[in-house]
Amino acid sequence: MAKQMKTMDGNTAAAHVAYAFTDVAAIYPITPSSPMAELVDSWSANGRKNIFDQEVKLTEMQSEGGASGAVHGSLAAGALTTTFTASQGLLLMLPNMYKIAGEQLPGVFHVSARTVATHALSIFGDHSDVMAARPTGTAMLASGSVQEVMDLAGVAHLASIKSSIPFVHFFDGFRTSHEYQKIEVLDYDDLEKLVDYGKVSEFRHRALNPERPKTMGTAQNPDIFFQAREACNSFYDAIPDIVEEYMQDISELTGREYHPFNYVGAEDAKYIIVAMGSATDTIEETVKYLVNQGEKVGLIKVRLYRPFSEKYFMKALPETAEKIAVLDRTKEPGAVGEPLYEDVRSLFYDHEKRPVIVGGRYGLSSKDTTPTHFKAVFDNLREDEPKNNFTIAINDDVTHTNLEPKEHINTSPEGTVRCKFWGLGSDGTVGANKNAIKIIGDKTDKYAQAYFSYDSKKSGGVTVSHLRFGDQPIKSTYLIDEAEYVACHNESYVDKFDMVEDLKDGGSFVLNCTWSQDELDNNIPAKMKKYIADHDINFYTINAVDIAQDVGLGQRINMVMQTAFFKVADIIPVDEAVEYLKEAIQKSYGHKGDKIVEMNNKAVDKALDALVKIDVPAEWSSAEAAEEEEEEDVPEFVKNVLEVVNAQKGDQLPVSTFVGREDGHFPPGLSKYEKRGIAINVPNWLSDKCIQCNQCSLACPHAVIRPFLLDEEEAANAPEGFKTLGLKVSS
Amino acid sequence: MAKQMKTMDGNTAAAHVAYAFTDVAAIYPITPSSPMAELVDSWSANGRKNIFDQEVKLTEMQSEGGASGAVHGSLAAGALTTTFTASQGLLLMLPNMYKIAGEQLPGVFHVSARTVATHALSIFGDHSDVMAARPTGTAMLASGSVQEVMDLAGVAHLASIKSSIPFVHFFDGFRTSHEYQKIEVLDYDDLEKLVDYGKVSEFRHRALNPERPKTMGTAQNPDIFFQAREACNSFYDAIPDIVEEYMQDISELTGREYHPFNYVGAEDAKYIIVAMGSATDTIEETVKYLVNQGEKVGLIKVRLYRPFSEKYFMKALPETAEKIAVLDRTKEPGAVGEPLYEDVRSLFYDHEKRPVIVGGRYGLSSKDTTPTHFKAVFDNLREDEPKNNFTIAINDDVTHTNLEPKEHINTSPEGTVRCKFWGLGSDGTVGANKNAIKIIGDKTDKYAQAYFSYDSKKSGGVTVSHLRFGDQPIKSTYLIDEAEYVACHNESYVDKFDMVEDLKDGGSFVLNCTWSQDELDNNIPAKMKKYIADHDINFYTINAVDIAQDVGLGQRINMVMQTAFFKVADIIPVDEAVEYLKEAIQKSYGHKGDKIVEMNNKAVDKALDALVKIDVPAEWSSAEAAEEEEEEDVPEFVKNVLEVVNAQKGDQLPVSTFVGREDGHFPPGLSKYEKRGIAINVPNWLSDKCIQCNQCSLACPHAVIRPFLLDEEEAANAPEGFKTLGLKVSS
Repeated sequence: MAKQMKTMDGNTAAAHVAYAFTDVAAIYPITPSSPMAELVDSWSANGRKNIFDQEVKLTEMQSEGGASGAVHGSLAAGALTTTFTASQGLLLMLPNMYKIAGEQLPGVFHVSARTVATHALSIFGDHSDVMAARPTGTAMLASGSVQEVMDLAGVAHLASIKSSIPFVHFFDGFRTSHEYQKIEVLDYDDLEKLVDYGKVSEFRHRALNPERPKTMGTAQNPDIFFQAREACNSFYDAIPDIVEEYMQDISELTGREYHPFNYVGAEDAKYIIVAMGSATDTIEETVKYLVNQGEKVGLIKVRLYRPFSEKYFMKALPETAEKIAVLDRTKEPGAVGEPLYEDVRSLFYDHEKRPVIVGGRYGLSSKDTTPTHFKAVFDNLREDEPKNNFTIAINDDVTHTNLEPKEHINTSPEGTVRCKFWGLGSDGTVGANKNAIKIIGDKTDKYAQAYFSYDSKKSGGVTVSHLRFGDQPIKSTYLIDEAEYVACHNESYVDKFDMVEDLKDGGSFVLNCTWSQDELDNNIPAKMKKYIADHDINFYTINAVDIAQDVGLGQRINMVMQTAFFKVADIIPVDEAVEYLKEAIQKSYGHKGDKIVEMNNKAVDKALDALVKIDVPAEWSSAEAAEEEEEEDVPEFVKNVLEVVNAQKGDQLPVSTFVGREDGHFPPGLSKYEKRGIAINVPNWLSDKCIQCNQCSLACPHAVIRPFLLDEEEAANAPEGFKTLGLKVSS
Repeated sequence: MAKQMKTMDGNTAAAHVAYAFTDVAAIYPITPSSPMAELVDSWSANGRKNIFDQEVKLTEMQSEGGASGAVHGSLAAGALTTTFTASQGLLLMLPNMYKIAGEQLPGVFHVSARTVATHALSIFGDHSDVMAARPTGTAMLASGSVQEVMDLAGVAHLASIKSSIPFVHFFDGFRTSHEYQKIEVLDYDDLEKLVDYGKVSEFRHRALNPERPKTMGTAQNPDIFFQAREACNSFYDAIPDIVEEYMQDISELTGREYHPFNYVGAEDAKYIIVAMGSATDTIEETVKYLVNQGEKVGLIKVRLYRPFSEKYFMKALPETAEKIAVLDRTKEPGAVGEPLYEDVRSLFYDHEKRPVIVGGRYGLSSKDTTPTHFKAVFDNLREDEPKNNFTIAINDDVTHTNLEPKEHINTSPEGTVRCKFWGLGSDGTVGANKNAIKIIGDKTDKYAQAYFSYDSKKSGGVTVSHLRFGDQPIKSTYLIDEAEYVACHNESYVDKFDMVEDLKDGGSFVLNCTWSQDELDNNIPAKMKKYIADHDINFYTINAVDIAQDVGLGQRINMVMQTAFFKVADIIPVDEAVEYLKEAIQKSYGHKGDKIVEMNNKAVDKALDALVKIDVPAEWSSAEAAEEEEEEDVPEFVKNVLEVVNAQKGDQLPVSTFVGREDGHFPPGLSKYEKRGIAINVPNWLSDKCIQCNQCSLACPHAVIRPFLLDEEEAANAPEGFKTLGLKVSS
């Protein structure tokens, strides 16, 4: 690996390339695109130079409406201009996008594609936002992984300059924008050589400039508007070849092959999936697995979505194709079908040889979709009458759209190590895991991937980290459901979540808890015991809380748990790991002073000795759950929805759960049913110190603390142990 | 005609029905939708009651973003809420439309469909705005004429209430929104009976209300969002039947047949056009004309565009259909095809019997499209390999998309009287013509249509009024190019525009001018003389300017010219017409006092006698144009574009005119090449009255008046007749 490899997320990859080609960035931050703008801002502030040897001038506007207006104005003034957005942010940019495309200005919109809010808001990923931009006349380029973001972001900028048409470059929100991967980083010196400087200067010369006055933004009437509008046709006709050309340049540079449509699969495939975005990696993994089993399946990855080039599509498609499933990551209620599906059907309509073409929806709002689901799509194609307008990865027991998987498959390549960490939002688990994969990614030849599945509660919610390590690039863009290593960073989780069930036989489970081996018997549930015993799980505990408090780190247990991971998972020799960890500590905390560095180093050292390997008693195998206590009298919604969601089993809820609440409404007052029990220390009212400021009632997010003024009768009738205090009256 | 017939435009028809069903209207005005909101506002202010016996509460917000937010909020609070918008206004509403549809709130958006600005802004009509709303999940209903707006606007409200899904009800900007037609007006008492009051009360009960608390606007995560989103499917599945049912109710009420898709044409048609909006009337006229000639052609009018119902489409389509042309009034550069085309191709993809399906664009930005052009579409279908992705009504000499008409056809039904008026924006011509068609429409059994073709300069520009009268409903939704009557209200136009050329043989031409019969010879161009002589034109002059000034109306010549029209066109007996005119004068000006009424009445009386029938000299037939003077040295753009456009011949400019200016830029400083000569009186600088305030320079829109301070040398070198004045220095 002579190339420069680095571990980063998709947003960083996009920002890295965008920075190179950008004079001006006009932005307004929105999840999950914000880090792109933030990185560009901080690089600019630190004097980093773009390929024109200048810092990017970044301006934050009052909304995405303003940002897109600034993009338009800045382009009209001759500055290569870029923005970053998603979801409703992109919607607010639409009016300006029509103008920017109409005026043939080479702006680039990097979009971390995110669900547009409908019955509910969602910060997660699908293509409903970019699909709303498809009528605007921008070109649209899709990347499916962090590496592709790095490779194709530049194609968007280069082709935009060359074609004079703005580009939307998009990749899946969270799955790609926030996934960490070890990737090859492109060098500005290489990118610079690909720029058509003639076109850049032509563009700058076209700018509004009092030295060369011209009128822009005219109003046209019915007599000439239509003709003037048709004058752009040849510009769009030229784009696919321009993109193909730049893709060849990038392929040459990187050894990775790119075309407007890429094919992977059997040369003589009969069954083809067409898709775009991060799913293409998972489908590729599935296709390879199935082809290895002799199946004639394949995948067309859509990269250049607009202009949609029939020429390159047909080039990519094997002649043997008989049936095609087109997968859309969006839903347009009332349409004949989803957009990509309609495109492909329309494309083939008058072909002599017309494959069967069906369409399906998947992955709305980052719904996890695995090889098992994509295999179901191929299985559907094999039917005599394949189901059309289907869904996957959900159970639609109302309108029965979903395909039922016939078989659960595991397509991870041999040698992949999969690790899953159950942390509490803001306990440092995510940061520690990012650190761990950077160490393994950057210090070894191994490829690494990390995805963090956040609860929308963020701070204080459950955060599950999914880490994979392997010798080949990792294409598994789905959550881990079979792991070699699982760690639980919070002992209260043992009663709430199924965690060990994800472990392979012989895998390792590390539990942070204060319990001794004996106490474990009383504290971990029968189900967990049985699984550990039956599946030969290596079970470790560590009291990370005590160590952290001992060394002065308070509640920050992340360094302890990270050390435990390196020791147990054994991906690199533990001595080396400790060395890298301490290097990283120096780098992260050095500027905060020796004391902090020292505390963290101590935590590492103590953690190495504090791991306790549990001798799993044989009788755990026959552990049986105690009779379930009679369920409390809780509302139907709490029992059937809230508790399922809080147990991290929301994926299993069928569509019928939402019948009667199709409009997205939920009952109010649900927080009282949450008993999270996550606190390490529980607050206690010290009546002798209370000054009756009553600010405690404002500080409690669950409105549990309520000061009451009692009269004497109420005080007399209060239950035993009910503490009161004389009223302080200010004079 | 026992029914209530009235002459009104499409905006008024939409507002009339919208008012009935609306509790709250949240609006922000944008051309061409503004009159709908203005009417609702003024009706509400005047105490008009909706079907719930209340006034509509109307609120104007700060933008369409705010208006759509208010629509959302008001619906969430349980008020039936309506808005009116177009173009960029609709784009700003998109984020809220996704929410309103997702939350299943029965709001209605009446849209006077207008071009979205691209290389240039345009206030005129096409479907680029409503097509941008097609992913939002609203239902979409299209009306093609003023009568259909009246008939179907209610279906939008009624079906929205019944289905709980918001509706976009759209009709073509200007062509329908501003076209006057004599139509049947629906009665609130009839509409009221169609309301599903159970659904209204269910909706009001669903509202956010502290008495029945619930949580709206939740944030959902990947676990449940997809399932919850699929829960809406059955609501969309139900809409086509709901719409069909209400259409049947309306059909029963009116005798006009409506379905989600309406078919007109030969029962055994082979060649079918699919289209929506105002073009459907012109196509219907074309189809009837061709069917009368024995041709097997037909038209499917798309009314319910979303949800797109295969069931009703197939019901409408004749089984004999072999080839289909789908016409889209929008352009989506880079798409496989335009949206309606893709829908229909996708629909038929796996049908056993698959017709040939091609697609074409037409009518962008109100481009006038006539039966001749639609016949070209049928001619294209007859080809062995019909051209696909075509355009009509333009000459695309660059990418050669357009169909070439083989034959010019005139499909106006027998007995239609067509009248064309060349007026000066703000000279009162349009108002007078509106008055004239109301008189004829409301006082006789005749149907009437008026369309006003405005210059974007509006005040001071050319405005051509197109009026039709006939015994059957008028379906000619295109400009008049063959007329029985042409009037020119400004004598300076004779040199600039081809006006008499539109007249049929034996038609009448009325010219407002100050010229005597003899002077005509010197003042009207040879071309005009020749046409008048060769085609047996009845030629009248009238000195409307003198009459108007005589009676004290100043420059307002409209009453004079209107009287001349009634006398010459002879659509109703002139005595009756005069009576109605004077009634109308009393009605319009009565509140301004007797003097104004008297002046207008006098203008009418004088006009009757002032018409001069010109004896057309035989030698006019051999009139020849004098040698054209050598063209001044004007820039290429002025000669090839500006002058053509100003001569009202912009429709003839081919696409190649815009090569090199595909981005929409125009050269600056063009107004100096306009010599409009429209002023009746020309201002004159009275140096003895000048106080040197210099405000004249601000008042002149063409920046012609510029005060200069001369030094003595400059004054000495000034050309003869150059007037100067000593500088006034304030002390």
